[in-house]
Amino acid sequence: MPDKFHRVVFEPDGRTLDVPDGQTLLEAARQAGIHVETPCGGKGTCGGCRVIIPQHTPEPSDTCREVLSGEEIRRNLRLACQVRVRRDLRVVIPEETRVGDQKILTEGVGRDVPLAPNVRKTVVRLPPPSVEDQRADADRLLDALAEKGMADLAVDVRTARDLPERLRAFDFHPAVTVIGNDVVHVDRATTGDACYGVAFDIGTTTLVAYLVDLKTGRVASVASRGNPQAAYGDDVVARIEYCGRDGGGARTLQRLVVGAMNEMVAEVCRREPIRRSVIYEATAVGNTTMNHLLLGLPVHAIARAPFVAATASAHSVGAREVGLKIHERGRLYTAPLVAGFVGADTVGVILATGMHDDPRLRLAIDIGTNGEIVLGTRERLLACSTAAGPAFEGARIRYGMRAASGAIDHVEIEGGRVVLHTIDDAPAIGLCGTGLIDAVAAVLAAGVVDPSGMMRPADQVRATSPALARRIVGADGEVGFLLAGKDETAGAHPILLTQRDVREVQLAKGAIAAGIETLLEEFGATLDQVEEVLLAGAFGNYIRPDRARAIGLIPCVPLEKVRFVGNAAGAGAKMLLVNRNLRHVAGEVARGVEHVELSQRAGFQARFADAMFFPTGVM
Amino acid sequence: MPDKFHRVVFEPDGRTLDVPDGQTLLEAARQAGIHVETPCGGKGTCGGCRVIIPQHTPEPSDTCREVLSGEEIRRNLRLACQVRVRRDLRVVIPEETRVGDQKILTEGVGRDVPLAPNVRKTVVRLPPPSVEDQRADADRLLDALAEKGMADLAVDVRTARDLPERLRAFDFHPAVTVIGNDVVHVDRATTGDACYGVAFDIGTTTLVAYLVDLKTGRVASVASRGNPQAAYGDDVVARIEYCGRDGGGARTLQRLVVGAMNEMVAEVCRREPIRRSVIYEATAVGNTTMNHLLLGLPVHAIARAPFVAATASAHSVGAREVGLKIHERGRLYTAPLVAGFVGADTVGVILATGMHDDPRLRLAIDIGTNGEIVLGTRERLLACSTAAGPAFEGARIRYGMRAASGAIDHVEIEGGRVVLHTIDDAPAIGLCGTGLIDAVAAVLAAGVVDPSGMMRPADQVRATSPALARRIVGADGEVGFLLAGKDETAGAHPILLTQRDVREVQLAKGAIAAGIETLLEEFGATLDQVEEVLLAGAFGNYIRPDRARAIGLIPCVPLEKVRFVGNAAGAGAKMLLVNRNLRHVAGEVARGVEHVELSQRAGFQARFADAMFFPTGVM
Repeated sequence: MPDKFHRVVFEPDGRTLDVPDGQTLLEAARQAGIHVETPCGGKGTCGGCRVIIPQHTPEPSDTCREVLSGEEIRRNLRLACQVRVRRDLRVVIPEETRVGDQKILTEGVGRDVPLAPNVRKTVVRLPPPSVEDQRADADRLLDALAEKGMADLAVDVRTARDLPERLRAFDFHPAVTVIGNDVVHVDRATTGDACYGVAFDIGTTTLVAYLVDLKTGRVASVASRGNPQAAYGDDVVARIEYCGRDGGGARTLQRLVVGAMNEMVAEVCRREPIRRSVIYEATAVGNTTMNHLLLGLPVHAIARAPFVAATASAHSVGAREVGLKIHERGRLYTAPLVAGFVGADTVGVILATGMHDDPRLRLAIDIGTNGEIVLGTRERLLACSTAAGPAFEGARIRYGMRAASGAIDHVEIEGGRVVLHTIDDAPAIGLCGTGLIDAVAAVLAAGVVDPSGMMRPADQVRATSPALARRIVGADGEVGFLLAGKDETAGAHPILLTQRDVREVQLAKGAIAAGIETLLEEFGATLDQVEEVLLAGAFGNYIRPDRARAIGLIPCVPLEKVRFVGNAAGAGAKMLLVNRNLRHVAGEVARGVEHVELSQRAGFQARFADAMFFPTGVM
Repeated sequence: MPDKFHRVVFEPDGRTLDVPDGQTLLEAARQAGIHVETPCGGKGTCGGCRVIIPQHTPEPSDTCREVLSGEEIRRNLRLACQVRVRRDLRVVIPEETRVGDQKILTEGVGRDVPLAPNVRKTVVRLPPPSVEDQRADADRLLDALAEKGMADLAVDVRTARDLPERLRAFDFHPAVTVIGNDVVHVDRATTGDACYGVAFDIGTTTLVAYLVDLKTGRVASVASRGNPQAAYGDDVVARIEYCGRDGGGARTLQRLVVGAMNEMVAEVCRREPIRRSVIYEATAVGNTTMNHLLLGLPVHAIARAPFVAATASAHSVGAREVGLKIHERGRLYTAPLVAGFVGADTVGVILATGMHDDPRLRLAIDIGTNGEIVLGTRERLLACSTAAGPAFEGARIRYGMRAASGAIDHVEIEGGRVVLHTIDDAPAIGLCGTGLIDAVAAVLAAGVVDPSGMMRPADQVRATSPALARRIVGADGEVGFLLAGKDETAGAHPILLTQRDVREVQLAKGAIAAGIETLLEEFGATLDQVEEVLLAGAFGNYIRPDRARAIGLIPCVPLEKVRFVGNAAGAGAKMLLVNRNLRHVAGEVARGVEHVELSQRAGFQARFADAMFFPTGVM
């Protein structure tokens, strides 16, 4: 149906998005990486997603009339969940509607998850002891918690050690923090009920941290970093080699990633602002290698056939045991892994997209340094990992960078003109993942690059477009396409898409395409039978599905089947943080997924080589 | 029925015991503190309790004929569980039947407990990984264990850290140790299946350690020590005062008790002999103060009304966390407490005697530095703690000592003669608890001490017994009764029972008697309604119920109602070690018992003062 798209511009930061006809504004905002408060999950009851539509304001729905005041309706406020996009629109998102940082796509598919965190904090009032009531302090506390419906808890020796003194200092009226079934902290009632968690997406190249208010489920703040382990190898195999058999290198890599995680914790705490001691739990998803390095587990058996992890289970460890600086009794939950290189990030993608619970045949592609692919229905799910490389996260690309202020995130060639958009509209610094996809799609469509990936000589291009031919220039011994001249950039250097950059994109998309073909074959399905293609990744902003299809990063399916779901792995980590019951589901998902090991498969290399060609005439 | 008693002499060490008519030899041996191998629990199927009865050999039972060879029957071997005592007997216990040390009464009531320890050790063979079978090492191991019926286990991060290397070093054929649901150790299959635990009875004055082979439930060895904390106060109140509010003293006391526990572990390991690294779990019972000092919990709220513990729950902590040197991943389980001073030792007594599961109204008296008393049926159990003092463990008694070689354990006055027995028939060194009870009972019966506890002047006694009058002598300004002259003792000094010693016994027995009265009143029962009186204590050997009754340590009930059950608290610790399911029962028992706080009870002091008088004409 929605072959029709409308352009929506979100203010105040001008983020622009092509939205299929009939999509809600809330969904569009999420896809654009704008965090909107929706405690009700988009049902129109909470009124959290108020937006202003200054022109072409649609008639308010009944729900809007119920939730909003007459004054608000006159001021052109609407609920984003109630507005379906039927034409190009400019939408203003008020400050109170926005949540946190906009740089990282944090919402993903935004599935609704009931709020049931593993951490609970409450204030209780205990009857003081007497000769008639000699219950031990711990029992007194547990009985009071049970009266509030928090049963089956325990006070361990560590908590019991300062319990008598604290209960008496606080006149038997404390604030109590419970993680899982353990009472971990007793504090003055007046310290309030601030209770936070942090969800980490530990990528090979990119780290993302989401600070979540566990009282509401609201994402309070987001931070991201490059993974500092990248200095020791830009893919997992190189990192494992660096570790060596004695594990000395592994300790270095563990320290590095935890150091960056602590920096991100400090950053989100500063922004909220809160003390880190009110963060009681962290969850983390990552591929097998990232998981093992974080937990100090040996990695050498992962890198060589038959690619075996030490443990694929979820673990809950003391945060301090791995050096993570949250509450001193805080816990770190690491989600379970599938097998081989397919790790907890993939489990996160499945949870976030609901593939484990959907009768439709769906395909999810999580674009990272390892490209993970999941295919299947709730009856059967297959997964594989491909060595896509870090190109889409800015590494191995001449002017590559992460999605941050100044990154070129959109590229179009209109006529002979190159039209660029940068994050924050800042002077261009480099090219992030979405910009790279757009750039390749654009040069391909313009005939600057041929389907084999070869950049045509300026002479050949000049015949059709002299303007573009002028942009084909030499740079340090290789040829490149000039995206921005040095007068247009922040660094006063030109920004080019080089021949080698195009080759990196070919390698990445070739690996993914070959993986998809292999999974389809293994599943016994054809591409036509796939009902939805989900494109995920810790990109800083929105991938345009048409561009991804044009370069062959996703297979050639009708565009209405394609959905960009953002950082679905990170969304999974958040879901596991706000709802402890999903941890059982995660375990079942991890055990239930069939892992397809590509590297040892006859014919995979040939299929990979074939898949490196660009599609012709798709866009 | 059994108003008739027979004397049984156990060889080779001549231990003598008066046994009610009809009791089995196995029960008698246990009561005498002789450990006999009975893996079958006394059902006559294992043949472990072979004894030789040289004279008056009873006819072999059918079971004996089935289990023993004709040769053995001709050599007068019988199964101790099959022989009922109908006359005085001399019994030889062969070396292979005896287990471990004989000095400490370890068997208590010896209730049968199914062997279901919390520690399991097994050898498994895993299929090595392949590209077709990429299960993580931990999953591979857990699947193999599940096939052996050990399901729902987990491999934590700590175990997973060296799992890949170990599995490969041992060719995927390891010996696996599981504590609770956690795989804690993977070792070479050839290291075998040695798997031990140690049960501790942590008394205020006396410590006992039982090494138990968890493959069979057999008590392999026993050790005991005085509690070195005694240097800082001989009762719990004095120790708590020493701790002070800053807890500095508590750390000293914790180190001391753990040091002694480690010495006992070393001793039992040397005797078995095993390495301490094959001891995987310890259990401990102790009163509230001993429990808290062991676990490093604060004690100051225990000593003052309303006498509140920090925690009354059972805890399982890493043994290394408290400094206990068993396997580096070994656990220490501390049994739950009741309330006030009534601790896990009392829970142990209840479990061992089965009071929680018995319809009869029974009374248990656990004689220690705190005298704990339990009264009730399976419907309702009451417990209290009395400050009996350490007299029966040798402290505060002029020539007091623990039950060890050379301790006078039996005293009789026949005519004017004093007849002594010492442990190991060694030259006398001092007086242990049972000897003290005997000595007081004897001087009371002989009229040397009057019912008020006053030692009569020699002049008064001379009229009835000149020989005894000569034994009433002065010593360091107080009067005493000469038990052994200096030519009869190891230390070449006389051994006396002093006036002050008699007073200490009066204080102890008065406290206990007043406690019993209070519990009876609270329960609404009379002494006549009590169907059984159980006398327990970590004595080195057998208390004679008639003597205990004669001095009023137990109330005036018919002797057939009285049973000495030995170190029932320690027996409870052993039961909790060999059967993990009992830990739930222990929790229910601890929560179910009603604690009666004596110290705050109107009239208790008056009752106590009255109870200090000795009974007249009981023996």
